[in-house]
Amino acid sequence: MSRVSGKTDRDRDLARLGAAIRARRLARELSQEALAGLAEIERSHMGKIERGERNVTMLNVIRIARAIDCKPSELLADADL
Amino acid sequence: MSRVSGKTDRDRDLARLGAAIRARRLARELSQEALAGLAEIERSHMGKIERGERNVTMLNVIRIARAIDCKPSELLADADL
Repeated sequence: MSRVSGKTDRDRDLARLGAAIRARRLARELSQEALAGLAEIERSHMGKIERGERNVTMLNVIRIARAIDCKPSELLADADL
Repeated sequence: MSRVSGKTDRDRDLARLGAAIRARRLARELSQEALAGLAEIERSHMGKIERGERNVTMLNVIRIARAIDCKPSELLADADL
């Protein structure tokens, strides 16, 4: 795997995870700001996570999953990860 | 939830994830060094991840899962996350 395709894979993985978070958030009728507050994550960082622009840490994935009342493993499975 | 118990929960979550990685690695009969090489993660960092001493990033969870031939969501489910 070349570095270029590696980067693309990573971007795609993070984008899929972000989309899964966004879908669960919307299903819960939460604003991004509300989710950021519940998860205790800074709002602009939350936006970047949802857009797949940040390599989110495990503890933040756990915080986000709990805030939207699902298991972190379910969130990853939603993203086909 | 107090800050103290919050920290304990986090430590426990990361320790469980690390233990799940270690169990899958051993089931594959891989040394920590071999897994670190496959996942392209520095060996001492890999040790800290397995001991739950690092807040591992999503991209590293993905790299580790692929190196041990499972899905990241399965790894988290193993850790009851």
